[in-house]
Amino acid sequence: MRNVLLTITYDGTNFCGWQIQPNQRSVQGEIERVLSIVCDRTIRINGASRTDAGVHAYGQCASFQADFSIPIDKIPVAANRLLAVAQDRNNKKRRISADAAILSAEEVPIDFHARFNSLGKKYIYKIRNSHKPDPFQRNYSYSVGKTLDIRVMKKAAASFVGTFDFKAFQAAGGKELESTVRTVYGTQIYAEPASHMIILEIIGDGFLYNMVRIIAGTLVDIGLGKKTPDEIPYIISKKCRQLAGHTAPPNGLYLAEVFYKKERMLEAIKMMDGKEE
Amino acid sequence: MRNVLLTITYDGTNFCGWQIQPNQRSVQGEIERVLSIVCDRTIRINGASRTDAGVHAYGQCASFQADFSIPIDKIPVAANRLLAVAQDRNNKKRRISADAAILSAEEVPIDFHARFNSLGKKYIYKIRNSHKPDPFQRNYSYSVGKTLDIRVMKKAAASFVGTFDFKAFQAAGGKELESTVRTVYGTQIYAEPASHMIILEIIGDGFLYNMVRIIAGTLVDIGLGKKTPDEIPYIISKKCRQLAGHTAPPNGLYLAEVFYKKERMLEAIKMMDGKEE
Repeated sequence: MRNVLLTITYDGTNFCGWQIQPNQRSVQGEIERVLSIVCDRTIRINGASRTDAGVHAYGQCASFQADFSIPIDKIPVAANRLLAVAQDRNNKKRRISADAAILSAEEVPIDFHARFNSLGKKYIYKIRNSHKPDPFQRNYSYSVGKTLDIRVMKKAAASFVGTFDFKAFQAAGGKELESTVRTVYGTQIYAEPASHMIILEIIGDGFLYNMVRIIAGTLVDIGLGKKTPDEIPYIISKKCRQLAGHTAPPNGLYLAEVFYKKERMLEAIKMMDGKEE
Repeated sequence: MRNVLLTITYDGTNFCGWQIQPNQRSVQGEIERVLSIVCDRTIRINGASRTDAGVHAYGQCASFQADFSIPIDKIPVAANRLLAVAQDRNNKKRRISADAAILSAEEVPIDFHARFNSLGKKYIYKIRNSHKPDPFQRNYSYSVGKTLDIRVMKKAAASFVGTFDFKAFQAAGGKELESTVRTVYGTQIYAEPASHMIILEIIGDGFLYNMVRIIAGTLVDIGLGKKTPDEIPYIISKKCRQLAGHTAPPNGLYLAEVFYKKERMLEAIKMMDGKEE
């Protein structure tokens, strides 16, 4: 029995999300389908994060245990080749450019689990701030036409760093029994003027349902002057979803990295602080 | 009666191409549909270029003549608002992010025609040169896994500049009666290492059917060592499609700009030479 950790990238536009759902095209379902062919047995994978429909990933991780004969380093190329084949109604196959790909596969200890062993995750949220439409960015960023004040957004983003009960930043309907305390290790906001982008990066030990999207929406509200950065500690302390801002749309959200090594995560947090100033 | 010149951008992925076709979603059809609402009468537009399915535009141009009451500078915002509304099967409307948008509208003399008055066009062709898959670029570039030799591609690209009979670079089945002589004013090839892109830019007075895609495919063949730059003059002189390279796919092609003013076109050609060095 071997245990394998996969790193996966996908454009979430045409998926129902990560998790398998009946009669829908999920990332998990597609990856399991091709891995089952490559490994010649039914493969079930455990993803580190259940991203929603429309949410993208540069570095989702997933693990699976199985007996199989193919060398582990050959899995990405073999699986990606199958992901790039579509079957039409007449069962005719044709090559397509796949919207998901396995970037790497590595053997891990048998008790390793992509979700439970994660020390933290990095998400990126992209906001396009221009009154000019850009069809090429429609699925890949949150389009905000009115000018955002990036300085107050930066100030507000810094207030999320720390260990707090983030209940106010959880989508309504979350499970009541679980703890809503999370630690945000670092945030940063920066502009990419050439593409009119304002980009939020956030690293935490874990995130509540829709937490990054509600933080992004709240930061947009602050950038528009509807809220002030000083309100963040108050909103957090009140644990009330209604006090936080709107939920930013899924298409601006990217799961950038899942951390399994402390040094790598500290390095990523440090790089943030470097950019912040 | 007024005559209006539109500049239009679109992501060609989900269109059957520029030109109206029965039961298919074309850019022309979508733009005419919303303009007819905005101008409160049936509008038919003339595009500068009939781009194929999957081909993109940063700056397609189209003109139309009509009597209407809305101020011309209000047309883009009004039309873009309608382009961003989709109707589902139950006739229910919802906001979407549009894959086409009007960037500008300006009044032009009554005898102006977007196609016939064009002095030239600039196309961009994007080649992604990496063995690593990138799902986010699948619809926006031609993916070539093997390493391309950009130096020989640059040398070959320069050979296309001039007035030639480009019959060898026209898709088979083109109209026999028309002249296949065209002038290419400038080309350049440069790398964007951060995104693994090799980018071809080309300006000419006009292009034959699939001409830019066959030039791009031939340059890829040269970058792979299947052909040499010295063969280009020979291929052109033989006027034989079979001697040129393969037709690169539509998703790497962008109509970047249509030129109506000589100074603007000379400026664009000059900027190319500047980058070339």
